[in-house]
Amino acid sequence: MNDVALTPQATKELFIKMVVDAWNASTNQVTKIFDDLTDDQLKAEAAPGRNTGVYLLGHLTAVTDRMLPLLGFGERSYPQLDKPFLATPDKSGLEIPSIQELKQYWKEVNAKLSAAIAATEPDEWFNKHTSVSAEDFAKEPNRNKLNVLMNRTNHQSTHYGQLIYLKPKN
Amino acid sequence: MNDVALTPQATKELFIKMVVDAWNASTNQVTKIFDDLTDDQLKAEAAPGRNTGVYLLGHLTAVTDRMLPLLGFGERSYPQLDKPFLATPDKSGLEIPSIQELKQYWKEVNAKLSAAIAATEPDEWFNKHTSVSAEDFAKEPNRNKLNVLMNRTNHQSTHYGQLIYLKPKN
Repeated sequence: MNDVALTPQATKELFIKMVVDAWNASTNQVTKIFDDLTDDQLKAEAAPGRNTGVYLLGHLTAVTDRMLPLLGFGERSYPQLDKPFLATPDKSGLEIPSIQELKQYWKEVNAKLSAAIAATEPDEWFNKHTSVSAEDFAKEPNRNKLNVLMNRTNHQSTHYGQLIYLKPKN
Repeated sequence: MNDVALTPQATKELFIKMVVDAWNASTNQVTKIFDDLTDDQLKAEAAPGRNTGVYLLGHLTAVTDRMLPLLGFGERSYPQLDKPFLATPDKSGLEIPSIQELKQYWKEVNAKLSAAIAATEPDEWFNKHTSVSAEDFAKEPNRNKLNVLMNRTNHQSTHYGQLIYLKPKN
């Protein structure tokens, strides 16, 4: 009773569900931490000398925002986050938005991405993302949109492991 | 030039490659950290009051070892790791193997898992894993072996984010 006979289309949809479910689970975990942490907890470093919660909030918001054009889902909302949260390390002294603004941006970019994910046809996920050339994609068809979502889930999980350290110890 | 026409079998093999590549990339990252850290660095806490590197090494080894029976790949090698590294938090005072032994176990369980992954036929990945009943799997065919590998990659990435903190700061 181990085998399942799935049509090719059902197999595709199953795989998309697996990847989207994993992304959503990771995003929900991270959102819960951002919601639960106080401003003072977010301003602290995850470990001595490492990134603060505020930096990780801005960093993950910028990365999710950038996924919109990368996946062909349209314009991003907050390109001004790249300089302080992607191009520059934490504690650079650059001016950054307030924690309340960053939390609002986080919810907005995720709502926009979720809506675009829900509106994407199954076959579209197997097309190339916008940072790979048609020539390279012909050779490496694994460099598709679904793979971007899967790899960004792993990136987000890496930072989730660090954000946990901002919560009070049990 | 966006579209690719893949046969159903090629589509399946593409999914499998995406998931296995992500697992391998994560495992290689973690292995490199374990190889690079000195024993003293591994004995340290990733952040004050949090898990030590030694605990994370034992924990990840136990989780990978358990994947062998979970994926129907055969017997696991080190069930004795479950008590100190899964059932019990760090600094329990339980007797544990030496760091050198744990590092050896880490390499062994990963070599065994890699060999089993390489020997797995594409269709087999879409069968149920051994912890889900046939009835539940009929309703939720996403609970297949490939999904286990994808979710374990995220789990491993979470701890990778913590292990980074054991490395000296740049």
